[in-house]
Amino acid sequence: MTYELYYWDGLQGRGEFVRLALEAAGADYTDMARQPDGTEKMIKFLESRKTPHIPFAPPFLKHGEVIVSHVANILLYLGPRLGLAPADEAGRYFAHGLQLTITDMVAEIHDTHHPIASSLYYEDQKEAALARATAFLRDRLPKFLSYFERVLQQNPDGSAHAVGGALSYVDTSLFQLADGLLYAFPKAMRGWSNDYPALEALHRAVRRRKNIAGYLGSARRIAFNESGIFRHYPELDHAPD
Amino acid sequence: MTYELYYWDGLQGRGEFVRLALEAAGADYTDMARQPDGTEKMIKFLESRKTPHIPFAPPFLKHGEVIVSHVANILLYLGPRLGLAPADEAGRYFAHGLQLTITDMVAEIHDTHHPIASSLYYEDQKEAALARATAFLRDRLPKFLSYFERVLQQNPDGSAHAVGGALSYVDTSLFQLADGLLYAFPKAMRGWSNDYPALEALHRAVRRRKNIAGYLGSARRIAFNESGIFRHYPELDHAPD
Repeated sequence: MTYELYYWDGLQGRGEFVRLALEAAGADYTDMARQPDGTEKMIKFLESRKTPHIPFAPPFLKHGEVIVSHVANILLYLGPRLGLAPADEAGRYFAHGLQLTITDMVAEIHDTHHPIASSLYYEDQKEAALARATAFLRDRLPKFLSYFERVLQQNPDGSAHAVGGALSYVDTSLFQLADGLLYAFPKAMRGWSNDYPALEALHRAVRRRKNIAGYLGSARRIAFNESGIFRHYPELDHAPD
Repeated sequence: MTYELYYWDGLQGRGEFVRLALEAAGADYTDMARQPDGTEKMIKFLESRKTPHIPFAPPFLKHGEVIVSHVANILLYLGPRLGLAPADEAGRYFAHGLQLTITDMVAEIHDTHHPIASSLYYEDQKEAALARATAFLRDRLPKFLSYFERVLQQNPDGSAHAVGGALSYVDTSLFQLADGLLYAFPKAMRGWSNDYPALEALHRAVRRRKNIAGYLGSARRIAFNESGIFRHYPELDHAPD
């Protein structure tokens, strides 16, 4: 049964974390945003007054009769089906907790350019954005990255993976997180391989995997742009002290 | 086996969503924040350089050898064990998606008083807080509450519950969400029973349940205060236009 991924067109956004897992596994899926009537279908579904399991917002996944919304929830559902989740219960809850920490960090990254309201333009909240981005780069970025580095270093199965001894959706998500940060904050990330060597090695290793490399080189991978979560506004980026 | 809940002392915070589920089910649990050495134990665990499954932040739950972090993940784990989750798979993923939407709303509520940085005092970000709270009350509050109202109204098993025909952790979480909003934003919430009748009825019904009423009347329920997520700063609260 084909997976149908519903998300906004024209940006990587939160949907990209789901795409990467599907691509890593070589799964049979339809990226509805790329279908002629995909966006229309998505909005119609979101606005339905009859369907019981309505999502609050994209992305959401349809698989037969099951609707799953929120990136971390979708990956929780897909993980075992795609062979991208640990086999043991404790490992699965840990993997999901890591994905939820990534979710929190993604929200904070979004808010570096939209600290007041998503409904306003960046240009209308630039002053607050600079204050928030400065605090984020000083306090939060190192706190999150140090945490993920520790998770890798303290993995009993080796630092090549976040959980267990094989690729999981947490690894592909950490790749995307690092990739987006390198795009948005090149100055702040300069020298990150010294501070977070296992994370940097993971980023390189995931990028080189056959399915991922094929995806990244294809037209299916939308380039980072200033409509997504990770935006490069040079005025918000600066090297650590 | 006793559940051990680890969280900060002296506030409801995110931990309260977990406490309410445990209390609703009459579960055997230890609120570690109320133990003499609970906070110390929690910090020691968070800083461990050996444990593999380290959480990023509280709250987290210990149950035997399993460590679960993030409120929604903890409720995902507890739900079936406490009889507070739907029996069918589609219902469980929907319930988890709802809890993750509550998580997102809670983060936005937090950011109405801390839009720039959690590390700064509210007093040092009051101007941005007013701008963010104004946008939140105008756009986001009605968007979230309308969504939850629709979920209740469109539940095929009746509008008394968010998912299925019995109490779930989503219901206790919606109770807490409404309760916190009524504390933080009494002016903005005035008349909410007209706009969100099913949600208001749910809030009343959950509050009256035997275990919940007993908990709310006990010393275990910390009062809302200005250290938590839901803070009453009168200057941020205003009636809808």
